[in-house]
Amino acid sequence: MPTRNASATWEGGIKGKGSFKGESGGIGAAYSFGSRFENAGGSNPEELLAAADAACYSMALSLGLERAGAKNVRVDTQAACTVEKVGEGFKITTMKLVTRARADGVDQAKFREIAEAMKEGCPVSSALKGNVRFELDAQLESPTAVGGGR
Amino acid sequence: MPTRNASATWEGGIKGKGSFKGESGGIGAAYSFGSRFENAGGSNPEELLAAADAACYSMALSLGLERAGAKNVRVDTQAACTVEKVGEGFKITTMKLVTRARADGVDQAKFREIAEAMKEGCPVSSALKGNVRFELDAQLESPTAVGGGR
Repeated sequence: MPTRNASATWEGGIKGKGSFKGESGGIGAAYSFGSRFENAGGSNPEELLAAADAACYSMALSLGLERAGAKNVRVDTQAACTVEKVGEGFKITTMKLVTRARADGVDQAKFREIAEAMKEGCPVSSALKGNVRFELDAQLESPTAVGGGR
Repeated sequence: MPTRNASATWEGGIKGKGSFKGESGGIGAAYSFGSRFENAGGSNPEELLAAADAACYSMALSLGLERAGAKNVRVDTQAACTVEKVGEGFKITTMKLVTRARADGVDQAKFREIAEAMKEGCPVSSALKGNVRFELDAQLESPTAVGGGR
């Protein structure tokens, strides 16, 4: 039952400033209203959500492909998280995943089945399911048919 | 309608390795099965979720306090995200927020009302609502009563 920790500080009101960091040391940045809801440079919570889902989805799809017998698996995922103004507030509406994979020994149909199942099935996507709309563009590149190999 | 981007790559199966990065440059780390579900060092998607919710909650609570007339607002939040083995898979079950705030001109009752509303009301928490259990320990430290100031 791993528990992972991070912290964040915000000072001031809407024109204030914030920063966050994770316990591992690999995550840490400043953020502001401008970097979150406008076009100022810097990080924001939506970038963190996109990274979380990209990481979770790539891992889950790889494990699913391995379980289906695939070899030499590599999965690259780009995630785009959109936040929109709704009334007086903001709502995270969409997570779009664009995935390109390599895997020997799995055909397109099986790949598509696993990729679709993980779209809302990996742990991070499951945590967002029902609240955020998912879009997936997943492609198996240069596949080797079942029975093939390198 | 800001859209934030991040990417991740996983190579291999369950004993493989991954890495993620965000477009801002402030987020990037390696991760593995060991760093996610065991005790190996490194990052993981749950740390990213914890950072996202800590950042979102600190900002939302600050903005709520400002809207209620508070001055000199500062909010520190620690978030702990727990993932558990459920059957053959893993599920993100809990997000615990520990918040300490300073704010002049808001009393404990009003602080508590805003802190509780943001627990599942800030955009990141709203995206997780219904799927993840939230716990909140929020305290206003050294408050100055309404009408006070420095």
